Amino acid sequence: MKPILTNMKALFNPRSVAVIGASDNSEKLGFHVMKSLNKGAFSGKVIPLNPGSPEIWGLKAYPFINDYADRIDLAIVVVPAKLVPGVFTECVEKGVKGIVLITAGFKEIDDPAGAKLHKRIADIVNPAGIPVIGPNTFGMINFHANLNASFTPEFSLLKKGNIALVSQSGGISHLLGFLAMRADARFSKIIGLGNRLNVDFAEIIDYLMNDSETGVIMLYMEGIDNPMRFIETVRNHRNKKPVIIYKTGSSEKSDQAAKSHTGSMAGKHEIYKGAFSQAGILLLDSAESLLDTAKAFASSEIPEGPGVAVLSGQAGPGLAACDVCEARGLKIINFEERTQQSINEFLPPLALRTNPVDMGPAWYNASAQSGIIRAVMNDNNVDAILLLIMFASANANLLRKLSEFLTEFKRSIPIISCILAPPGVWDDDIHRLEESGVIVNYPTPEQAARAMAALWEYTKIKRKNNF
Amino acid sequence: MKPILTNMKALFNPRSVAVIGASDNSEKLGFHVMKSLNKGAFSGKVIPLNPGSPEIWGLKAYPFINDYADRIDLAIVVVPAKLVPGVFTECVEKGVKGIVLITAGFKEIDDPAGAKLHKRIADIVNPAGIPVIGPNTFGMINFHANLNASFTPEFSLLKKGNIALVSQSGGISHLLGFLAMRADARFSKIIGLGNRLNVDFAEIIDYLMNDSETGVIMLYMEGIDNPMRFIETVRNHRNKKPVIIYKTGSSEKSDQAAKSHTGSMAGKHEIYKGAFSQAGILLLDSAESLLDTAKAFASSEIPEGPGVAVLSGQAGPGLAACDVCEARGLKIINFEERTQQSINEFLPPLALRTNPVDMGPAWYNASAQSGIIRAVMNDNNVDAILLLIMFASANANLLRKLSEFLTEFKRSIPIISCILAPPGVWDDDIHRLEESGVIVNYPTPEQAARAMAALWEYTKIKRKNNF
Repeated sequence: MKPILTNMKALFNPRSVAVIGASDNSEKLGFHVMKSLNKGAFSGKVIPLNPGSPEIWGLKAYPFINDYADRIDLAIVVVPAKLVPGVFTECVEKGVKGIVLITAGFKEIDDPAGAKLHKRIADIVNPAGIPVIGPNTFGMINFHANLNASFTPEFSLLKKGNIALVSQSGGISHLLGFLAMRADARFSKIIGLGNRLNVDFAEIIDYLMNDSETGVIMLYMEGIDNPMRFIETVRNHRNKKPVIIYKTGSSEKSDQAAKSHTGSMAGKHEIYKGAFSQAGILLLDSAESLLDTAKAFASSEIPEGPGVAVLSGQAGPGLAACDVCEARGLKIINFEERTQQSINEFLPPLALRTNPVDMGPAWYNASAQSGIIRAVMNDNNVDAILLLIMFASANANLLRKLSEFLTEFKRSIPIISCILAPPGVWDDDIHRLEESGVIVNYPTPEQAARAMAALWEYTKIKRKNNF
Repeated sequence: MKPILTNMKALFNPRSVAVIGASDNSEKLGFHVMKSLNKGAFSGKVIPLNPGSPEIWGLKAYPFINDYADRIDLAIVVVPAKLVPGVFTECVEKGVKGIVLITAGFKEIDDPAGAKLHKRIADIVNPAGIPVIGPNTFGMINFHANLNASFTPEFSLLKKGNIALVSQSGGISHLLGFLAMRADARFSKIIGLGNRLNVDFAEIIDYLMNDSETGVIMLYMEGIDNPMRFIETVRNHRNKKPVIIYKTGSSEKSDQAAKSHTGSMAGKHEIYKGAFSQAGILLLDSAESLLDTAKAFASSEIPEGPGVAVLSGQAGPGLAACDVCEARGLKIINFEERTQQSINEFLPPLALRTNPVDMGPAWYNASAQSGIIRAVMNDNNVDAILLLIMFASANANLLRKLSEFLTEFKRSIPIISCILAPPGVWDDDIHRLEESGVIVNYPTPEQAARAMAALWEYTKIKRKNNF
């Protein structure tokens, strides 16, 4: 398996990409792959291959790989399954560094011929040490190389960042991608593992742990053949980067379905759960919370203790956040005496001056707000801040003022926020605050609190494992 | 309390509205209330009152209520707390039918003078049977009367529908409103109860149960003085309309804070929980799930049994939905023999032809898709359908074809969906399908499954209570 890892960098960073089965016909996946390379603005060489067309997507096309004289780093394969052994043999001869095999019809089909074909193509590429993403995948995207090697051009609408998404399901990858467009989460890579000919979760983890563009690794898993190899691989990296996971198959029907869908073992959810924790992997329970948590790890510092200050523009969202915090192991601490005194000076004798703080009465007074935040930041009991602000017509200018203060004031502890307004109203301000790393923002107070709890949970798992 | 109920209809459907404390100065709440009435396109008479200005918002203004000769149905009050007793006395003399008291500084402040003032103004309006929304509220909106009697003009961006939101927190009301703009949930009324001078949850429930524009009642609660009165009121209506609730205060800190914030008892969450169930009230655990559930009740039939068919365009989202379904009391049933045969004819021998069904291979074949859906609809084991479809470049036209089929085909059981694409791509199609009542759509498969589970849970609660 070693040579496969060596070639992984070339797989994700090719200078030339051949599309084997490229097409001008929009009913063919080969069309959409060409469109993806185009939309992703890949700056390397793109070589369409198809014996039937001299030109595809305005580029000179070649019948077979050997008809193209220069080197090919990456081959994206979309021809029918029965043609794949021949194509793979040509790829080996040509010396390609990596393959994305989009074609389906291997181990995942009911017919034993599928499993046989699977083994046959593995035997062709394995000796040559060529890593293969797939079969039965939408492909992969390396955002930092502007490489969209998938049949979904729309993935190129996502922004570059440090989250790597590795998924066993195309559907969940698309789900997470489309949610991320709305949530403004930013990716380094999206990788659809498909039926993992020779690149499984373990190989990807080894690669991504040394990938400078990746800061957090999020996984979607249904079931794998060798769970222990995966667990040990992650454990060996001792949480160099956070690994977070969403695994389906907790129910009887989905467990059965996963076995049949992925052609591999799903197995008891409880066993996975324990093993994940021992490897320092954080387990999430939905696609939404997987993405929310990835976003927090991507942009936030990690709290060093469980002490949270809830600073809210309105009482209700503060209470909602407190409920989630306490249910998930965070503590709504009491402020130090000097902090409390300072808050009392800024706020009238309305209720909720203690934690959670209802900053409502100070919303017309930027210096009072910043005074409260500053005081809380300097409180030794406070490890992290939840900042919750709902738009009102009367406080429309609030966020601008608050932004100035927060951007200038160097934050020393994590701030996770729920700042929400009607669509379009505060979007640019929130976006700027997130891009400059001042806050990580969520659409509800509960999501913000859950994200904070996940960061703290991760610290606890690390400490428990002595990482 | 009887006369208060009599006047409630006039409170929400006034022909003339006086804004006591109206202003042209955007730093005053009286400005934003005027703006709301304007933005909401209220067609009745608006009378600004302010002793300092002859004209406000281009309308003739009057110094005091009695200076205005015609009748006043609704008074929205935004003057300082100390002026409220005088204003209320004038309102009684004038014969107003209802009051929205936005002003804060009554029972909720630490100072006993607040509670005293609270009692004093109650004693003025109660004998006259004038219902008061507030004090310490953003106000209320009656969408079907184009009446935005709040200080947030942006609430008028929401669409008319049959969901009534009743909330003890302005912050949570704004949160839910802004989320609803994104989720396309539609409201009959939004009511900020504030500190409930004489209109508490019980009075509102009595009113809304007979309000023809309201189909589902969603509540946000922190704590109330007389929980049993509320519970009995709801129970008396025997689930004529679904009542769903989100209550904070499950944690120690939020419970304490709620007591202090609302000036009333919050109390043990577990006690509330049991009582809610006995009254037929469905308890939700976040703002998001409260809104999601309200949306389902607003537009979907209620499943008559727990049998769900999961029809998915991609396997992963189907597995995610199954996990949620089984964890929450729904059953991923086995299809009847004839249904399974029919599905097997439409799909190739790939895995996942049993429930959950991976319809992926049929996505290029509209008649196969419709055949599968039709077969599943007619299956006696199936009480409801979850339909999960992720956009891909190659299936961009799919939704249009599917829409035609679904719209023509009269559905006999609830269909809840997660149909998701990059922002802007399928929005109009999804919107049309939702508006015509064909589906209720959510951004994740888990949310769709949770909404379905909530509908079934409600059926169970009703049956248990013999409603």
